[in-house]
Amino acid sequence: MKKVAIGVDIGGTNTAIGVVDPEGNVMVNNNIPTPSHGDINQYISDLSEAINGLINSVKLLNDDIQVLGIGIGAPNGNYYNGTIEYAPNLSFNGVVHLVKLLRSHFPDMQALTLTNDANAAAIGEMIYGGAKGMQNFVMMTLGTGVGSGVVVNGELVYGSDGFAGEIGHTTLVAGGRPCGCSALGHLEAYCSAPGMKRTAFELLAHYNANDSLLADKSYKELDSKMIYDAAVQGDKVALEVFEKTGAWLGQGLADTVHHLSPEAIFLFGGPTAAGDLIFKPTKEGMEKHLLPIFKNKIPILPSKLKAGDAAIVGASALVWKELDK
Amino acid sequence: MKKVAIGVDIGGTNTAIGVVDPEGNVMVNNNIPTPSHGDINQYISDLSEAINGLINSVKLLNDDIQVLGIGIGAPNGNYYNGTIEYAPNLSFNGVVHLVKLLRSHFPDMQALTLTNDANAAAIGEMIYGGAKGMQNFVMMTLGTGVGSGVVVNGELVYGSDGFAGEIGHTTLVAGGRPCGCSALGHLEAYCSAPGMKRTAFELLAHYNANDSLLADKSYKELDSKMIYDAAVQGDKVALEVFEKTGAWLGQGLADTVHHLSPEAIFLFGGPTAAGDLIFKPTKEGMEKHLLPIFKNKIPILPSKLKAGDAAIVGASALVWKELDK
Repeated sequence: MKKVAIGVDIGGTNTAIGVVDPEGNVMVNNNIPTPSHGDINQYISDLSEAINGLINSVKLLNDDIQVLGIGIGAPNGNYYNGTIEYAPNLSFNGVVHLVKLLRSHFPDMQALTLTNDANAAAIGEMIYGGAKGMQNFVMMTLGTGVGSGVVVNGELVYGSDGFAGEIGHTTLVAGGRPCGCSALGHLEAYCSAPGMKRTAFELLAHYNANDSLLADKSYKELDSKMIYDAAVQGDKVALEVFEKTGAWLGQGLADTVHHLSPEAIFLFGGPTAAGDLIFKPTKEGMEKHLLPIFKNKIPILPSKLKAGDAAIVGASALVWKELDK
Repeated sequence: MKKVAIGVDIGGTNTAIGVVDPEGNVMVNNNIPTPSHGDINQYISDLSEAINGLINSVKLLNDDIQVLGIGIGAPNGNYYNGTIEYAPNLSFNGVVHLVKLLRSHFPDMQALTLTNDANAAAIGEMIYGGAKGMQNFVMMTLGTGVGSGVVVNGELVYGSDGFAGEIGHTTLVAGGRPCGCSALGHLEAYCSAPGMKRTAFELLAHYNANDSLLADKSYKELDSKMIYDAAVQGDKVALEVFEKTGAWLGQGLADTVHHLSPEAIFLFGGPTAAGDLIFKPTKEGMEKHLLPIFKNKIPILPSKLKAGDAAIVGASALVWKELDK
């Protein structure tokens, strides 16, 4: 009997679904649109159909398969209540009881559980990735936003209401850049991909850098991949974007260390593909702000989850974690 | 049979010891010097004698008493190893195996455990104080330094090495004031009692405030009690010290909320005696930096531990916590 778990990643426009084996390999997968119509019952019905379709196709591959459960990563996902709550990028209003609704379609699943995408990534790292065997670590996901998942004593920290682990919204610069959440100076406003673009434009203006490789891009055009390409070609503005982004991220991670004393910190997402360009200044920035007892002790590591299917794989890891309790 | 616990608070010059009942009342107590001679064996012998003296005197009060254990709060105390490690204000060198040494004098105690003083205060708040029944909260101790204890899922967070919960060393102002630990811009450099004095002198200089009630004090003379007294009399500089201290502390606490989503935050120590003068700007400062999902949800509360014996009582709480496992 081969045991597998289903991972569901609910994004703003697309819902990705996959059947994942115990080693974290996606055996079969599929996508359905995350609807803009706002009808949650219709969506649950479509999602259930897609999940059942995948279960059938994986059983065609191997008829001795047992599906243990469904793990779901969703924006503003609340683990305690199995709800998605006021997610700004989804069309469903208010509080959606996703687990309860889906449970009626899958009454016999051993585990059916939900959390936000960054928490799912952290559990994915713990079950399948570089954090195997670690009891205390932090996962940071850098992309359009900055998400995080915090693990203490082998358990994800959900806090009093299910919403712990929003390190992207800690303050780096009091009174600094407006964050998407409307507060000022949050880490996400500096260390996300759009944050890097903001830094690039500030530096272009500061140096009046007409000779920069980034100087012929409009604000709308520029993205973090272009900044990376320019940095590789030695562009000074682009290189300084990485230096500053790392210094800011390191400052924030030092705050995390002072709260939690983790064994390691993992970085995941687009900007981490830049390797040393981002890891080196991040490490230096963190060390600069640490108490002596923490210095040179806490590695900042690239996630071992594969970028392409990390969201599905992370969500599926919730199932193994849940059954381990 | 009345069950009691012994609390030991090891300070830089003084070691306070008390026998504490299950309601958190100190039944009998005593003090011995924390020696400057650096001889740990002599100190353990003196400490054991003092503890045995208290046990005998409490048994004279009530011969049906059972002593369950000894809890110790100490600077740089490591819960995992039962050690005091490189404590800058103690005369003992390097790593001191305090629990092991003391155990040889008390082989039959059910619990013999040690942590740092702020962690002990957090457990004291959970066992005897305002955090009874809370599963997720944070304790901040404001004094010469700023300590903290973090509780997640009903357990104190010690992290990978026993040193988690150093929120006093999170960064508020990148490149800001030098902290005692030598890093720049840490919370402790702004929100401790000496931090308030630094703010007062900055403001005196900024406003050239010869008319302030604080203007006739030397740097050495000024303390946070004088700032409080001046604020109560309406002194503008002193009032602004509290405003700024609260704004900084609130910014830091928002970072803590974004990590942990606690049910409440407790403040303990001298500066909290100022009541609304400090609590109000702290609350406002925190709310300003929070994500909408956390706004108006997390109370900042005064500790319910009595200032005079909180250190002994907090240390004794370790025993109840340990036996509860």
